[in-house]
Amino acid sequence: MDQPDVLAWRDGHIEALDQTALPHQVRTLKISSVDELVRAITSLAIRGAPVLGAAGALGVALAVRQGHAEGWDRPRLDAEIKRIADARPTAVNLSREVAAVSALIGDGALLADALLIDARPIDARPIDEGAVEAAALAVLDATAAVSYEISARGAAYLTATCGSGPLRIHTHCNTGSLACLGWGTALGVIRALHAGGALRHVIVDETRPLLQGARLTCWELGQLGIEHQLACDGAAPFLISRGLADAVIVGADRIAANGDVANKIGTYGLALAARQAGIPFVVAAPESTIDQATPSGAAIPLEQRADEEITVPTAPAGTRALNVAFDITPAELVSAVVTEDRVIPGGR
Amino acid sequence: MDQPDVLAWRDGHIEALDQTALPHQVRTLKISSVDELVRAITSLAIRGAPVLGAAGALGVALAVRQGHAEGWDRPRLDAEIKRIADARPTAVNLSREVAAVSALIGDGALLADALLIDARPIDARPIDEGAVEAAALAVLDATAAVSYEISARGAAYLTATCGSGPLRIHTHCNTGSLACLGWGTALGVIRALHAGGALRHVIVDETRPLLQGARLTCWELGQLGIEHQLACDGAAPFLISRGLADAVIVGADRIAANGDVANKIGTYGLALAARQAGIPFVVAAPESTIDQATPSGAAIPLEQRADEEITVPTAPAGTRALNVAFDITPAELVSAVVTEDRVIPGGR
Repeated sequence: MDQPDVLAWRDGHIEALDQTALPHQVRTLKISSVDELVRAITSLAIRGAPVLGAAGALGVALAVRQGHAEGWDRPRLDAEIKRIADARPTAVNLSREVAAVSALIGDGALLADALLIDARPIDARPIDEGAVEAAALAVLDATAAVSYEISARGAAYLTATCGSGPLRIHTHCNTGSLACLGWGTALGVIRALHAGGALRHVIVDETRPLLQGARLTCWELGQLGIEHQLACDGAAPFLISRGLADAVIVGADRIAANGDVANKIGTYGLALAARQAGIPFVVAAPESTIDQATPSGAAIPLEQRADEEITVPTAPAGTRALNVAFDITPAELVSAVVTEDRVIPGGR
Repeated sequence: MDQPDVLAWRDGHIEALDQTALPHQVRTLKISSVDELVRAITSLAIRGAPVLGAAGALGVALAVRQGHAEGWDRPRLDAEIKRIADARPTAVNLSREVAAVSALIGDGALLADALLIDARPIDARPIDEGAVEAAALAVLDATAAVSYEISARGAAYLTATCGSGPLRIHTHCNTGSLACLGWGTALGVIRALHAGGALRHVIVDETRPLLQGARLTCWELGQLGIEHQLACDGAAPFLISRGLADAVIVGADRIAANGDVANKIGTYGLALAARQAGIPFVVAAPESTIDQATPSGAAIPLEQRADEEITVPTAPAGTRALNVAFDITPAELVSAVVTEDRVIPGGR
């Protein structure tokens, strides 16, 4: 695919493909401040759990750079970094990668310093901007690398489970390059099946309200020349019941210690339908998505977004909405979780 | 509600509220020919299984009148009436009411006749336009009358099953006045619960792709002052799993002899989720929706509509879709079917 990078670090700022403009416009955002980054994350210009993690890592480098330029004190820097980590609550990758890169800074490190000879302990010295940038870039690279491993392992798992096909796969939301860098997670598995001649076609859910399936997954599959058809979210359980898919594969925003999976709203209904139809329901996600600190799905915060994402422009003015952006699929409905390292059996 | 009639017969033509223009415009269509009626039905300006039945009945009167005015021969009249019956395939009410009113015409009856003294057998005499109109108007009146009985019976069933509440009800698509005349079927039951002080609020699915829930049900509930919230179709199974509804109630386009229910796409997933959550899944529909000639859901034709209803304007140009407008909920997932005459236990 000859297209701009989904996410990159260039000359001290972040460049990101604006995912709100796709598929009709391919536009790159130049992000030079924490404000701009938080806005890009909350508006979903930057989205997808693994990409959010990489953006959070780059965000720490961006905050350090902006802090140096604007003379922030340390509490201000910490507050700005926290704003990035908190920009969206459900995907654990964002706060986790922000924390990982922030750890390099040390609690007592200072943004600016006038001493020529520094005799203080390491973590009370000025922040090494270059080291922070290098750590952030390492997260970016690792995110892509992990996606290839998930893709290959997931394709091997599916052909071992469902036969060499060619397989018909049902998926939800967007879990490709745009969400994950590299090949993606669930969509990476689909791409690996395609590369191995084991894919017949893909059924893609629209994924209301923000239509990441219709806008982003159809765009990626079109670029890759992979045959696909778009379906309404409400149609998915019935299409699965009629035998139109050999497996359902989705990504994850967070996986609790007990195996419950938080993912884009609409996932739970697919899992129920897959069990009823007797086909595998597979989750493809990096190890970093697994959160041992969260005992079960009940403890995962589920982002509530604005009513207007659903009500405008179709419903009568003033209509209220229930706009929960993620749902929880209990482990008992999951056939397997495929990561870069292993296949974890689910509870089904 | 001070609003124009959903469907009426005035001065030899049909008047119908244009349901494609709601909620932003309240506009009445004047339909004076079979062409205009077929276009109104296929575009969903006129929609909802019971309203389709009444529109089919009026359509026969309209065809007879147009045939007289334009000098059609009998084969032409029969062909035009068949076009009305075939305008949409899934709801049995349309073809059934067209057939019922057409039966008055007699196989050999003629549209025009020059004889002054008619010695032919009754069914070979000219068609009595007044008798056909009267029969069509009787269907219109009966459709509304039936809705009140369904509403009352359904509300009594729900309070008997779930307690007097106030109840939280999840519903799909549009099954109110707009679809059924009178109070409606599933939405009529909700209205009857509200009238009896037994309703807390309603969760309404958007009902993609044509958004009858967001556009029409929210509009009707707003007019009635009934508290409601709009949700994406994909969210519905999860919201049900989280205990946000005491019951799910939907209408039906056709009910097979074995109790399988054809209804707007998205219904099947609600039924799966309701069973998993242990709450009732209730179908409210007139007896005329029950089709003893159809043994099971497998024999119900499911309308496939244009890809563009899903793909435009969001997906990349050229994206193909799977746009099946209805789904089948097997009887084993249905708690009960409530009609104007009885409560039929489902297979759950």
